[in-house]
Amino acid sequence: MGNATPQTGYRILPFGEAQDFVRAVFVAHGYSPEDAADIADVILRADLYGIESHGIQRLMRYHKALGETRIARVDAVPDTVFETSVSAVVDAHDAIGQLASIRAMRLAIRKAKRSGIGMVAVRASNHYGIAGYYVRMAVEQDLLGACMTNSEPILVPTFARKAMIGSNPIAVGMPADPTPFLFDAATTVVPRGRIEVHAKRGVPLPEGWAIDETGAVCTDPRRILDAILMRRGGGLLPLGGAGEEFSGHKGYGLGLLVDLLASGFSGGPFSNHKKDDPKKANTTHFFLAMDYGLFGGKPEIRARFSRFRQELRETPRAAGCDRVWIHGEKELESEARRRREGIPANERTLDELRRIAADLGLPRPAFIAPSPA
Amino acid sequence: MGNATPQTGYRILPFGEAQDFVRAVFVAHGYSPEDAADIADVILRADLYGIESHGIQRLMRYHKALGETRIARVDAVPDTVFETSVSAVVDAHDAIGQLASIRAMRLAIRKAKRSGIGMVAVRASNHYGIAGYYVRMAVEQDLLGACMTNSEPILVPTFARKAMIGSNPIAVGMPADPTPFLFDAATTVVPRGRIEVHAKRGVPLPEGWAIDETGAVCTDPRRILDAILMRRGGGLLPLGGAGEEFSGHKGYGLGLLVDLLASGFSGGPFSNHKKDDPKKANTTHFFLAMDYGLFGGKPEIRARFSRFRQELRETPRAAGCDRVWIHGEKELESEARRRREGIPANERTLDELRRIAADLGLPRPAFIAPSPA
Repeated sequence: MGNATPQTGYRILPFGEAQDFVRAVFVAHGYSPEDAADIADVILRADLYGIESHGIQRLMRYHKALGETRIARVDAVPDTVFETSVSAVVDAHDAIGQLASIRAMRLAIRKAKRSGIGMVAVRASNHYGIAGYYVRMAVEQDLLGACMTNSEPILVPTFARKAMIGSNPIAVGMPADPTPFLFDAATTVVPRGRIEVHAKRGVPLPEGWAIDETGAVCTDPRRILDAILMRRGGGLLPLGGAGEEFSGHKGYGLGLLVDLLASGFSGGPFSNHKKDDPKKANTTHFFLAMDYGLFGGKPEIRARFSRFRQELRETPRAAGCDRVWIHGEKELESEARRRREGIPANERTLDELRRIAADLGLPRPAFIAPSPA
Repeated sequence: MGNATPQTGYRILPFGEAQDFVRAVFVAHGYSPEDAADIADVILRADLYGIESHGIQRLMRYHKALGETRIARVDAVPDTVFETSVSAVVDAHDAIGQLASIRAMRLAIRKAKRSGIGMVAVRASNHYGIAGYYVRMAVEQDLLGACMTNSEPILVPTFARKAMIGSNPIAVGMPADPTPFLFDAATTVVPRGRIEVHAKRGVPLPEGWAIDETGAVCTDPRRILDAILMRRGGGLLPLGGAGEEFSGHKGYGLGLLVDLLASGFSGGPFSNHKKDDPKKANTTHFFLAMDYGLFGGKPEIRARFSRFRQELRETPRAAGCDRVWIHGEKELESEARRRREGIPANERTLDELRRIAADLGLPRPAFIAPSPA
């Protein structure tokens, strides 16, 4: 995922300055400095990981959601509506997804520490950014973490021609050495953000990612984004592709399963009814934290898993391939580099940052000052 | 999955007679009638579901495992070596996989009824047949069920050319009306059994299922089965296919995750070390049962989920497609039909059944008497 080397039309933003700016945007919207720092951390983690689609390029979307559309509410206080020692259902009351999710994962972690496992389903939330952020919270407490979210309908079920299920990513994190296992995968072939980035760059999609409203393969990213937005049919194919020959029904089933856990268990609407009320995002999530000491000595489990991963890394490579990756390595290596070197942003994104600064009356940091001629 | 209409070279076996025969085979190997009935039930459920690969066509493999190779031990008594209120680790001591697994899922179900959730990791087991069998045990108790297993290394990690991970299927079952959600998917593009069936029928594989030891696409099912058996490189591609363009790294990550839960948590060998001791199968499994009442009122959760599934069924179909399926429907419809009409078996499988009957001195039922000329 992601791309380490920015294309033409990109500029590098110093990480600390970008962080100060994004925090200031959320403070200007009315959040406390602590909450603003948490939200900024989730958003910028995507840029650090190299997942441009979910990073600062989406700041305009959050700015609008908190401002003109009021889809996310600054004053919302998420509240636990059902609870057992190992589970909870949280109504986020339209809180911004990042804050609702950080709190829900903290609750899951507390339950895991007391009862071995904690599972929290959240309703009435907003887009939560990268799922990988929350599983890493669990990993940092030496727990296994998982999380899932629904999204606008974008996945077309096998043999259908209308999007009914979200991109519904599944993320799982597990402590390991030298770096944790961090898996984060949309149940569509690719996430919506990849289509957005193709549209922003003006490049066509590979055949086999998306179909149009007639069910035919479509490589035009703008057309697919419009089809999703207008709900006129078409959308992304499930992981495994069209039909059953390469097991597209598996991606479809995994997406359905995420909707069960996130929407079915939280009491929020399933992906296909998410936008029934256009004034609400009605996003649902599911968080899990588990003490892997439920299965014996943690150091031994961790060491055995780390050894297995090392053997995978050392697998003989296919011709022309540089490296066999473990999930999370690309992201963690990118993070280390980009914290030092900065994060890339598209010129169109910089324009959006300038507009946000103007809207909120914020001073423009150097990196979004007009380019020196 | 599966095929309702048998091809040429198939005969239909009356279900009751096939059941009596398979039970008699396991009794002849030394099992009690109850245990023999349980084992037969798992094997024949595959034939009822239309998953020929995992059904009676594998009886010879079990017959050999209990007889000449002693890979599965009739006298094994699985034993719980670590336990909490929500979890357990079971050492199956080389028991036949079906019995070890039925017991492990029963333990998970008991824990779920007492503590809300039960998770059981099993080591030193054997191939357990279809994963879908065990999740249905949980579903029949109005619980959510999940199970996973490792297998011989067969999945080639993204950018590698050697199989390192099993086909590592993930099965999930959830109560719903009118029929439960039953998801059962190898994390490879297709399971090994599909390659076996192609080999038995002598038809080539589609391009994109498997690669040879050089990493090149291969459509010869015998060559792929040999490559897996001899461990000379090559194997099946992960769900999502070769490379990352269609997200083969996701199938690879899901397979890795199954090995973590089944092998990492049970203390048994990961898929790539499963055959280090050629005298043992060393298969590992992971079972989960969960009371979905952990998230509120069960009738309402079930009704909402059932309604969502109905909306999926009614999605407009792609041109030329008859039906949008829900996972489990094909299998349950096939089961209803085949319980009445019988199960198909390949002539080569019938030859194997005749040999098994002869080996064990069992009377041959009519369906494996030589064909009337």
